[in-house]
Amino acid sequence: MENIPSCWGGMRSLQWFVAGSQVLGIACVVITGVWMGHYRGGYAWDGSVNQFNVHPLCMVLGLVFLYGDAILVYRVFRNESKRSVKILHAILHMMSLIISIVGIVAVFDFHASAKIPDMYSLHSWCGMLTFVLFFLQWLLGLGFFLFPWASAWLRSVYLPLHVFFGLALMVLSIGTCLLGITEKLLFSISQTYSKFAAEGVLANVLGLLLVGFGIIVAYVVTREEFRRPPSPEEEPISVHFKTLTEGTPPVTP
Amino acid sequence: MENIPSCWGGMRSLQWFVAGSQVLGIACVVITGVWMGHYRGGYAWDGSVNQFNVHPLCMVLGLVFLYGDAILVYRVFRNESKRSVKILHAILHMMSLIISIVGIVAVFDFHASAKIPDMYSLHSWCGMLTFVLFFLQWLLGLGFFLFPWASAWLRSVYLPLHVFFGLALMVLSIGTCLLGITEKLLFSISQTYSKFAAEGVLANVLGLLLVGFGIIVAYVVTREEFRRPPSPEEEPISVHFKTLTEGTPPVTP
Repeated sequence: MENIPSCWGGMRSLQWFVAGSQVLGIACVVITGVWMGHYRGGYAWDGSVNQFNVHPLCMVLGLVFLYGDAILVYRVFRNESKRSVKILHAILHMMSLIISIVGIVAVFDFHASAKIPDMYSLHSWCGMLTFVLFFLQWLLGLGFFLFPWASAWLRSVYLPLHVFFGLALMVLSIGTCLLGITEKLLFSISQTYSKFAAEGVLANVLGLLLVGFGIIVAYVVTREEFRRPPSPEEEPISVHFKTLTEGTPPVTP
Repeated sequence: MENIPSCWGGMRSLQWFVAGSQVLGIACVVITGVWMGHYRGGYAWDGSVNQFNVHPLCMVLGLVFLYGDAILVYRVFRNESKRSVKILHAILHMMSLIISIVGIVAVFDFHASAKIPDMYSLHSWCGMLTFVLFFLQWLLGLGFFLFPWASAWLRSVYLPLHVFFGLALMVLSIGTCLLGITEKLLFSISQTYSKFAAEGVLANVLGLLLVGFGIIVAYVVTREEFRRPPSPEEEPISVHFKTLTEGTPPVTP
């Protein structure tokens, strides 16, 4: 998108946006933990509804907070070597993936025990779509950018798609969380939700904080001035490739 | 974001993405119409639940389809005068605003008749936030870009925020629709939704089509190559301003 004057987009503001994203992200994880721990009876792994409670916590921690932070590393560690930042990006996404798998197993396992049908709701459709695309994106990212399995041409084709779908999947993940919040409230407190029960207000606030986290991460990632400057290690290939094919200077994620 | 080779982002592909967005957008409006018209008893303006049915149709038509098309005009009408495209952008957003207001009045009026509390759900919080920010954004856009009420500096500060929040609000609007779909299904067919009732599957498909519409519009708007080239009428001011302040070539929305 556009360049933006320093009051909103200058480099000094980056640290404030990143700090804000971390405050919101941690608040989301803590509120989800309190909601499931305090209002919904706590956690277990025994097929009971307390096993279900592991699901929201894992998804908010894995597919929102860690996923968002994995995206932000390219803006936060601007001067570290590109390879180190790539490895950190891949590790954070791997943690996100593992924690998401635990969260998904938790809910399928609970459904099996409680004889509740799977995959009928819009929440489950959006969630499964997000998870499958995220897993594919992680595999492709690993093969294309960390290991030398793809040509420079293929990398240059895939990089902008990786960046776009990376952000799109975070947004879809947050949207899926909001659907999950609504489902859970209508299943659990349908009688008191409309009377502004504390649990309902807390969960609604969680929804708005998730939206806020997504907006800040998206803003930081799409601002031109926050983009990582090309490092010497990556210039030799990308400069030559871009100059040969398009005659324009290289871009970095 | 990044430049992208021609197979996914070349100018010829723009028409296919725009065509795809229109197919998905119209499908969303038609499916919402069929859902409310066929499965939920049709439309009325008498305080009954049939008045509620006006709400989803207006919001999908106004705050998703027309809103998305208002964003796309800068990419579709690349060679028309900037002022004409701005006016079309403002008119489409005004239609979007008016239809949204009808949709919001429909649901508040129905709630008043049926003695249902307002503004307790996450859907209503997200929806009201989206609508208020959209209204503010429309007023600011009108004052800053259509009428000469703002200095060149103020315009250049606000333009990237207008573009970012324009897209962010479309995403939030689609997220709010998904929440509305989930709420409506759990209120109306909670007994058969988990048995894959046709109405539930149709509404879930509507949710995925809304997500698809949002992804295509966001992709078209964020691709560098699809960006409108600077027109002669806007160059004199913007080139000089950008050169003076940043030493970089001008950007266009």
